[in-house]
Amino acid sequence: MENPNSPDDPGAPIRSGIPEHGRIPKYYAVKAKVAALITELGEGGQLPTERDLALRYEVSRETVRQALRELLLEGRLRRQGRGTVVAGPKLEQPLSLASYTEGLRRQGRRPGRALISLDRFPCPEALAPEVGVVRGEPVWHMERVLLADDERVGLESTYVSEARAPRLDTEFDPDSSFYAYLHDRLGISFGDADERIETVLATPREALLVGTPPALPMLLIHRVSRDTAGRPLERVRTLYRGDRFSFTAHLGRQD
Amino acid sequence: MENPNSPDDPGAPIRSGIPEHGRIPKYYAVKAKVAALITELGEGGQLPTERDLALRYEVSRETVRQALRELLLEGRLRRQGRGTVVAGPKLEQPLSLASYTEGLRRQGRRPGRALISLDRFPCPEALAPEVGVVRGEPVWHMERVLLADDERVGLESTYVSEARAPRLDTEFDPDSSFYAYLHDRLGISFGDADERIETVLATPREALLVGTPPALPMLLIHRVSRDTAGRPLERVRTLYRGDRFSFTAHLGRQD
Repeated sequence: MENPNSPDDPGAPIRSGIPEHGRIPKYYAVKAKVAALITELGEGGQLPTERDLALRYEVSRETVRQALRELLLEGRLRRQGRGTVVAGPKLEQPLSLASYTEGLRRQGRRPGRALISLDRFPCPEALAPEVGVVRGEPVWHMERVLLADDERVGLESTYVSEARAPRLDTEFDPDSSFYAYLHDRLGISFGDADERIETVLATPREALLVGTPPALPMLLIHRVSRDTAGRPLERVRTLYRGDRFSFTAHLGRQD
Repeated sequence: MENPNSPDDPGAPIRSGIPEHGRIPKYYAVKAKVAALITELGEGGQLPTERDLALRYEVSRETVRQALRELLLEGRLRRQGRGTVVAGPKLEQPLSLASYTEGLRRQGRRPGRALISLDRFPCPEALAPEVGVVRGEPVWHMERVLLADDERVGLESTYVSEARAPRLDTEFDPDSSFYAYLHDRLGISFGDADERIETVLATPREALLVGTPPALPMLLIHRVSRDTAGRPLERVRTLYRGDRFSFTAHLGRQD
């Protein structure tokens, strides 16, 4: 009945991720020690400096830096001013037709959006069936940074035909929910959507807009949605900080 | 109606991810060129050597290496023997109660599993409600590498109480579907499950078992499931190669 593996947290990696065979990379041993320190300090706790950690663990500052870099990428630490503190848990956003606004409010966070660009262009071939137009018809592309309590956490590109939302440029407040606008002003309700979720690295432009280190792993959600009559509605590409977000789904027997 | 941004592929990053303001990192300019070359070559196409690419783009081999490293992490390239070839599209696994086996078969791939460990241990506090036992009762922990056409693509940890599956160690073929075993041999059917998906970096142990570079971004799915009577059934932690997998969901109005 003895098992050295039995994790107290079944969501944690087995054996602190240290291989049974082969060498433990030095930076990874430091990472495991800092992870234990993070648990001890708790959310908001101030981490010792790189210099202090290097002295404490008797390794080079470069080794400490590599360990901290991974913990930052994973969202277990965050920079605050010139220091480094223990981060809170990732936000848990439901994978559902509910909007970003609604998901964030449920978690007691204040959602916001900042407009980056709003353009109208002739629909390319690949996009046409997804927004329900023929090639060349005008389509809006709206790009917004997603905010949670004023922190930049994501980047959203929405494509919708001009025919669906003719006055998007003058009538819509970009710091509000596009879904609420469609519903309340245009009488359009969402019926269903197909989503695909993957992990990608932030491009330099995305990193700049979202305020992350370049090449931070992001969660990318592609969405194609239809209205209640089954007509194509919008195509959305949303990038969420991988260190700040997780997504939840409830799966029933009918799925 | 002119828009320099209009992407032919609305799923692609805007403006090839190059910032409007600020410097374009040199490696990133090379990455964008290699990405165009990847499209040209098509799946399975052989990439020129680092040395040739460095000559072609008039940059150092280190710069080429950084660009290729990101394209490898993202699954757009893969190593083959001593060379590098254009990878196929990511597998699309449905987020559903269907098993890994079923999801892979639907995509015409051959699912497989290799047992790493099977242990029985006294249930820790945190796990007890998730597998429906009290602390200290015996629980199985089964760890398996997931295969797709003999390629290692993931790592799965399943926790289930011994009371549910008393003969797991002698009766169950670890290279088969655990869900089919529960259903066909034990008469247990899945009712519903809660899932949470996030991105994490592979630990050195995980990288070794799955055969990936260390710190590859992975998709981690936590699942807690119940049987048709609503009783806790299993707790699963599944890690999928972020360069090989994406997950799909169909969202309906009732979600």
